[in-house]
Amino acid sequence: MQTTTGKLINQLRLNERIEQLSQIGRIAETGVCRLALTPEDMDGIIQVRLWMENAGLTTRLDPFGNLIGRLEGADQALPLLMIGSHIDSQPYGGRYDGAIGVLGALEAVQCLIENGIQPLMSIEIIAFCDEEGSRFNKGLFGSRGITGQLEEGELERQDKNGVTRREALEAFGCSPSDFEEAIYPPGSIGSYLELHIEQGPVLEAMNAPVGLVTGISGPLWLTVTMKGMAGHAGSVPMGMRHDALVGSAKVIAAFDDMVREDPEAPTVGTVGSLRVFPDSRNIIPEEVSFTVDLRDMEMERRNRLEARLMNILDDVSFRYGLTYSLTEDTNSEPRYCAEPIKSVIRSSAEEIGVTLPELMSGPFHDALALSLVCDYGMIFVRSKDGISHHPSEYSSPEDIGLGTEVLYRTIRRMCSGVNQPTILPEEAL
Amino acid sequence: MQTTTGKLINQLRLNERIEQLSQIGRIAETGVCRLALTPEDMDGIIQVRLWMENAGLTTRLDPFGNLIGRLEGADQALPLLMIGSHIDSQPYGGRYDGAIGVLGALEAVQCLIENGIQPLMSIEIIAFCDEEGSRFNKGLFGSRGITGQLEEGELERQDKNGVTRREALEAFGCSPSDFEEAIYPPGSIGSYLELHIEQGPVLEAMNAPVGLVTGISGPLWLTVTMKGMAGHAGSVPMGMRHDALVGSAKVIAAFDDMVREDPEAPTVGTVGSLRVFPDSRNIIPEEVSFTVDLRDMEMERRNRLEARLMNILDDVSFRYGLTYSLTEDTNSEPRYCAEPIKSVIRSSAEEIGVTLPELMSGPFHDALALSLVCDYGMIFVRSKDGISHHPSEYSSPEDIGLGTEVLYRTIRRMCSGVNQPTILPEEAL
Repeated sequence: MQTTTGKLINQLRLNERIEQLSQIGRIAETGVCRLALTPEDMDGIIQVRLWMENAGLTTRLDPFGNLIGRLEGADQALPLLMIGSHIDSQPYGGRYDGAIGVLGALEAVQCLIENGIQPLMSIEIIAFCDEEGSRFNKGLFGSRGITGQLEEGELERQDKNGVTRREALEAFGCSPSDFEEAIYPPGSIGSYLELHIEQGPVLEAMNAPVGLVTGISGPLWLTVTMKGMAGHAGSVPMGMRHDALVGSAKVIAAFDDMVREDPEAPTVGTVGSLRVFPDSRNIIPEEVSFTVDLRDMEMERRNRLEARLMNILDDVSFRYGLTYSLTEDTNSEPRYCAEPIKSVIRSSAEEIGVTLPELMSGPFHDALALSLVCDYGMIFVRSKDGISHHPSEYSSPEDIGLGTEVLYRTIRRMCSGVNQPTILPEEAL
Repeated sequence: MQTTTGKLINQLRLNERIEQLSQIGRIAETGVCRLALTPEDMDGIIQVRLWMENAGLTTRLDPFGNLIGRLEGADQALPLLMIGSHIDSQPYGGRYDGAIGVLGALEAVQCLIENGIQPLMSIEIIAFCDEEGSRFNKGLFGSRGITGQLEEGELERQDKNGVTRREALEAFGCSPSDFEEAIYPPGSIGSYLELHIEQGPVLEAMNAPVGLVTGISGPLWLTVTMKGMAGHAGSVPMGMRHDALVGSAKVIAAFDDMVREDPEAPTVGTVGSLRVFPDSRNIIPEEVSFTVDLRDMEMERRNRLEARLMNILDDVSFRYGLTYSLTEDTNSEPRYCAEPIKSVIRSSAEEIGVTLPELMSGPFHDALALSLVCDYGMIFVRSKDGISHHPSEYSSPEDIGLGTEVLYRTIRRMCSGVNQPTILPEEAL
């Protein structure tokens, strides 16, 4: 283990900013409701923009509603290093999801500036617009925006008050007519880094404050509908039944068993939503619909499990005299973090005597959109009880500080011009 | 097989009455909505009352809203023979449920009168008020009324427009203050007979138009709530999950397997209703509530299965790290049909060359309330596809005619003074 030169980031300042930002759109004691493109979101942007400018960054709000703070590099022809996350929240959300990624990046870069280090390439810190997707029911808006991944009709999506995204953007002072020129040209972003809370219980279970992300798993989302025949619960003998709920229960139970088979694999499978028709206590269920969420870091294994799920559906349907139909709602491939970046992060942590466990990210992040245009790396901070998207979401100042310290050291190494670990002379710090 | 003397009931007249009654409160082509104590219900009562009086019965509407048609017996001191069912319907019901029992009884007794047979004991045909329970969410009102089984507060139950049962009864011209004296004194009803559609697929599967009921099974109604822990579907490893839906699926699947174990037993078990919380496709279910309906003709077996269900719940909860709670919503014992009456019904059918298969009744009927004060017997008529409580409910005129013929011959035997089969001289017919 190397000796540590001490933490260089200012944990106190970072923590105060997290605390201060959490007061904007605060609900209850610890909750936050800061939906994208609302007045609360704008208040958050104004606050973060001020901190960015005080740190010495030049800032702008781009046409997608992204707040960007830029530090010029020595060689502006080099692809830039982008670091970010988001500050919008879930409607009944917490104060850490997204926020620590933006404020952690700011703290790290401010530290770089305060240490008099000019990066080789320019660095941009970005607070992406509408990562959560709660308001218009489709997220990663800003990160998909700058990477040219928006879809037809996105601006016409309405919130529950009938306000379109176009209207909300314009009220924010953002002009959709400027989208085209705001897209980053291919090759202009060299790497993307994101610090984020884990939103799961893995690091806590390992007693590890910070972890290294291997990639964002690709979810397969299906909706399964099994159909049988209704009948009076008291009068149809068991042998004559076509009970859609019994069939669905058999499928859900077998699906869970199957996903658990290899305890070493990161595979997760979930049936989160289920509806019964007619849903009456004395009527045999005629139709049951349920969702399937299957994620893995290995597509080959995920495809194999999907095929086995189809076999389970066939077998159960045959056995219980049911029919079934399927819709595929989402089918994403896993996106792996870049090995060279993982290596820099790993070394940066080792520099301060920390060995990072590696883990998959089940949830999406802005990094997913960026992964299509550049290499990326992610650092996870331990989540208390694995909770997120809830006011009780919590990560300690110490854990966030440690994650930010690793981020800072990663940036410092990367902006020294190589993606491989380079130990800067102590005096340069 | 005995030779038959030909059918004596008037199948045409019976069928026309069923058809005519079905026009009152008709919905769609074949459906009926004749909720208890509504204007449609009153129109039905007026119509049936007219037919009763034309047949020679003296009629009254009792304080519980029951329509009663009476034929005096030779010996008015004898306990009476009551025959009935109901004419109220489900909100989206059919034309046969209940109606064939009232109109079949009328046809049978009219036949008796037309054949010049005076019964030994008095006979009362009764159309019970509110068997279905759809309007005030509690049924068997009239039959529980005359047998002294109403509960505290029943008159204050409201329909969805806020009308209480008391108000609805008074608008019907029925006075709750007369309830007390309208209850039949113990011993005053000797036997009760009911003709009803099966509401299940058993007779159809046996290719039998009519069946002999062995009893009404006792339902056990439970509500089970299993509680685990929510979490992001993408970030909680399988081994760390407490998924309430997976646990519930295991319980539902095992419960179904258990109930099916003895294919000879009439046991039926159903989970008809299930709710997931928070019911979101990418959140691990935190809490699932589902109903359990378990029916059997043998309490000992039902109790054994209930105990095994508790073991299943314990095992699954332990295995998946869940907790569960239970409420018992209903716990009725099976009520057996009287052997002497079953014997008369059996012989009456054999008289016309028909062997009746025996079957359990899963659903409730007014006979359940009567079973607490007198012997009872029930005759089932085949239901097409086992469907009831739906406009597509159907029993053929031939099947209903045959059931009514068996009912007529049963009444004829019983009112000759003995509960044992007695062949009347052919000339007496």
